[in-house]
Amino acid sequence: MITLYTWKTPNGRKPAIMLEELGWDYQAKGVDIGKDEQFAPGFLKVSPNNKIPAIVDDEADGGPLSIFESGAILTYLAERSGRLLAPSGHARFKALEWLYWQVGGLGPMLGQLGYFANRAPEQVPHAIERFKDECGRLIRVMNGRLSEADYLAGDYSIADIACYPWMVTATTMLQVPLASALEHAPAVQSWLDRVGERPAVQRGMAVLQH
Amino acid sequence: MITLYTWKTPNGRKPAIMLEELGWDYQAKGVDIGKDEQFAPGFLKVSPNNKIPAIVDDEADGGPLSIFESGAILTYLAERSGRLLAPSGHARFKALEWLYWQVGGLGPMLGQLGYFANRAPEQVPHAIERFKDECGRLIRVMNGRLSEADYLAGDYSIADIACYPWMVTATTMLQVPLASALEHAPAVQSWLDRVGERPAVQRGMAVLQH
Ligand SMILES: N[C@@H](CCC(=O)N[C@@H](CS)C(=O)NCC(=O)O)C(=O)O
Ligand SMILES: N[C@@H](CCC(=O)N[C@@H](CS)C(=O)NCC(=O)O)C(=O)O
Repeated sequence: MITLYTWKTPNGRKPAIMLEELGWDYQAKGVDIGKDEQFAPGFLKVSPNNKIPAIVDDEADGGPLSIFESGAILTYLAERSGRLLAPSGHARFKALEWLYWQVGGLGPMLGQLGYFANRAPEQVPHAIERFKDECGRLIRVMNGRLSEADYLAGDYSIADIACYPWMVTATTMLQVPLASALEHAPAVQSWLDRVGERPAVQRGMAVLQH
Repeated sequence: MITLYTWKTPNGRKPAIMLEELGWDYQAKGVDIGKDEQFAPGFLKVSPNNKIPAIVDDEADGGPLSIFESGAILTYLAERSGRLLAPSGHARFKALEWLYWQVGGLGPMLGQLGYFANRAPEQVPHAIERFKDECGRLIRVMNGRLSEADYLAGDYSIADIACYPWMVTATTMLQVPLASALEHAPAVQSWLDRVGERPAVQRGMAVLQH
């Protein structure tokens, strides 16, 4: 059985979507980052970086295995199931390049924009502009890719699963600063519809909601 | 033959170190990001996100393959060579979690600190403090891990290759804001020595220097 340590945030939803896609039995445990539960010693053993998500797979080959970092978790689940990531060849590395692009670019930059635009205790126009520009650029890059393919790696893969909850955040909580970028990203909008129709995606997005 | 599109920056040095570790013949092509060469149409075909590094492998299975994102490139080279990343099991996912930690955390946060502390056209104390605190935290997390193991995944792996050029930047260009965090990270310091002694690392760090 897999235990998923998570919270109702974009990164926390990624492995929940994947587990729902696989249809595997798993247990979702909430780690309320608003209450600093990510600093509890028990959780730090699983996730020494004090961030969700993390998983523990009791039945992993070689004994119980804990993994933190959503990209590593998605890759583990894909390799263990043989699904949503090609085992080799071009399709595999197209998926991995967009997965890394999400983890290293789209995620942290939308995260910083969210902080400076919505939560920072003081207004810092220079920082808001910087992250707004970078997020706008990333949305244009994604739109370019999705203008030539229905999904980031051609077929639906863990790269789409990683990007989806973040693009939902971009179109909701960050809709105001990103309005102009989003308006010029029709291929991203139709990809959002396509991915958002999947029942597993809907269930994963609702993790810990009930 | 592999062509490496790169520049003299931390992300640009990672695949160079890996190629040197493998001892493979490759051609390094400079993409001067100070002169906006990353926006040239020919380069955008290889790296639509307009960032270095990227590779093209002319002899990939299934025909020439281009890959952008340093984490995807390191994974490709590790899987193609069977080196510096275990093919399965615990060791594989320890390496991947720290590799993703670098790409999603250490890299972007040191990058933002570098911008706000050293290059921004105006002083933004709130942003400098924010990224200084986060980088200090990341250095403490890394120090914790390296207090229990010589290398991030136990054995030397692509996770160390990804972190090394960034930690060199932390101890040089960002030495002033990070002085206190670095002083309290002796395990990171000895890891830096251990990794830095490797001839392949020294050659990779000097990519495009001659
Ligand atoms: N690169 C990480 C990022 C994880 C992350 O940023 N998690 C946030 C919530 S979305 C968190 O746990 N924050 C709590 C904290 O930093 O203390 C991943 O992809 O898993
Ligand atoms: N997540 C990317 C980051 C790559 C990156 O930030 N590259 C920088 C240089 S270190 C770059 O090309 N910047 C030029 C630009 O953004 O226009 C990776 O790991 O490959």
